[in-house]
Amino acid sequence: MNIKTDKVAVIGSGSWATAISKMLLENVAEINWFFRKKETIEQFKELHYNPRYLQSVEFETDRIHFFYDINEILLESDIIVLAIPSAFLPRILSDVEVDICNKYFLSGIKGIVTKENLLVAEYLHKYFEVPMENIGVIAGPCHAEEVALEKLSYLTLASLDMEKAANFARLIQNDYIYTSVSDDIWGTEYTSVIKNIIAIGAGIAHGLRYGDNFQAALVSNAIQEINRFVNTVHPISRDIKDSAYLGDLMVTVYSQFSRNRTFGTMIGKGYSVKNAILDMNMIAEGYFASRSIFEINQKHKVNMPISSAVYRMLYENAPPKKEMAKLSQILS
Amino acid sequence: MNIKTDKVAVIGSGSWATAISKMLLENVAEINWFFRKKETIEQFKELHYNPRYLQSVEFETDRIHFFYDINEILLESDIIVLAIPSAFLPRILSDVEVDICNKYFLSGIKGIVTKENLLVAEYLHKYFEVPMENIGVIAGPCHAEEVALEKLSYLTLASLDMEKAANFARLIQNDYIYTSVSDDIWGTEYTSVIKNIIAIGAGIAHGLRYGDNFQAALVSNAIQEINRFVNTVHPISRDIKDSAYLGDLMVTVYSQFSRNRTFGTMIGKGYSVKNAILDMNMIAEGYFASRSIFEINQKHKVNMPISSAVYRMLYENAPPKKEMAKLSQILS
Repeated sequence: MNIKTDKVAVIGSGSWATAISKMLLENVAEINWFFRKKETIEQFKELHYNPRYLQSVEFETDRIHFFYDINEILLESDIIVLAIPSAFLPRILSDVEVDICNKYFLSGIKGIVTKENLLVAEYLHKYFEVPMENIGVIAGPCHAEEVALEKLSYLTLASLDMEKAANFARLIQNDYIYTSVSDDIWGTEYTSVIKNIIAIGAGIAHGLRYGDNFQAALVSNAIQEINRFVNTVHPISRDIKDSAYLGDLMVTVYSQFSRNRTFGTMIGKGYSVKNAILDMNMIAEGYFASRSIFEINQKHKVNMPISSAVYRMLYENAPPKKEMAKLSQILS
Repeated sequence: MNIKTDKVAVIGSGSWATAISKMLLENVAEINWFFRKKETIEQFKELHYNPRYLQSVEFETDRIHFFYDINEILLESDIIVLAIPSAFLPRILSDVEVDICNKYFLSGIKGIVTKENLLVAEYLHKYFEVPMENIGVIAGPCHAEEVALEKLSYLTLASLDMEKAANFARLIQNDYIYTSVSDDIWGTEYTSVIKNIIAIGAGIAHGLRYGDNFQAALVSNAIQEINRFVNTVHPISRDIKDSAYLGDLMVTVYSQFSRNRTFGTMIGKGYSVKNAILDMNMIAEGYFASRSIFEINQKHKVNMPISSAVYRMLYENAPPKKEMAKLSQILS
């Protein structure tokens, strides 16, 4: 990887993709950027900002090469940054006809590719033969909206190859983005997935009128649950209190804007899962994550009372009030 | 200790004392309750609630024996629950003429007795010869306001004598207060002290317009700082992620109502320390705690970048903007 000469692509058009593009353009002269719709590109060029997300962020559009053909952008790029909902990944990559096994990938996706319950890195490795060492993960507490406002944020770049992690870090760090590096791609990915499940649980509790004292106990128990899980699935030395893990959990659970928390709040207030999904007009990542983690954990049998309770409420019609009361007996 | 026959006293008239009295009265037939002012007692008896705090909580006043003489209430009681600001403790106890070395003490005070930088347990032991094993500490995330509303909360009762910890727990647990026990009176006391310093730091950051991403990193770094400190000062086996520690930190830092956080926000917005104190018409516990922990740490030399930065801003005129920028370089 040579971050001075390698061409960088961003796949995704949401707020996180937009924030990542902003960060990249602080360090590289130009980027390639993939949008599914040609119209969005036309609008973007005219407005000089993403017409649908983080509209306050102005871009010099002559520094952006826009693509709506996935094969073209991949051919033209060396480092591919993924920032789409995990649910869309297989669909977008199913069109890929070019060889991408020699590309570097940096995943900003916080979710699991559901069908086979694979992490993004595992998915890229299995289906596109990308070597694991060429894959990186962006972790840490980071609302895209705050990147737009250039509020100081700490991100962790994880890769099995620490030198590549450092290179990924150099791509996105700047005056308001401080970076750390880590070799823990499983731990950071799984934490970023499970924290969305916990945020749904916190939302459900909030919807049921549990208070801040309870939330603090819930999050304390949750980080222990996450620690048990990642230490079982990928037992390496890590400090779960680092901001890549605990920080990511807190910023999500305590955010008023988290879609996962909002989704949970609706469930807690009595919406059916189906109606909450319809009403939100989108599906919170934690909804899928809940089933994936439940299924993955069938093998590992880690004690995960919070994630399990959320799973039962979302997928097995467990009544939220009863289920949270049961859960509350287990917490401490 | 015999919680069925022992007489219980509450020392303090603030919101935490009121919440504790409410909890106690769920388990014991009557309590003794100390107020400094006779008028407050008169008003309380008339209104059937504490005239100044948690007014929504109605009390059966015939189950309360009111006292304004500290010696009388101590003579009449076996278990003494302390819930006053730590700054007032020496003053109130300086009037004590009766022997209290055979009493049991439960401290709900979250602060240090400043002059000699003693924890409450250490202070009671040193000046009143109360055996350490007869002292307990109430820890955990717990806004008094939520106890008033009977919102489920988790409290940890710590005592060197675990049987006594269990007895203290029995005194306050009920349908909405779930309890755990612990033998870690130093760790829980110090955490409850340091978290107020961190809350001031979080407030300063907020006042300086740092965002939620930063706060999440700050709290992640803070719990590690607390862990280093308590493991140095009192090295026993503990999990700092338990709600008695991490939960207590989070509920304070993320509370809009925390006086420490509000105090910090004023400093961050440019108030001088003096004016912030004048304007708030009270002194946040973390203000004193900051100096005490700084002084205690002169001996231990634990790396405490956040607490040290707060100390410098409060006591050494370090300009908040510069100091936070310096601190932010150290966090990760």
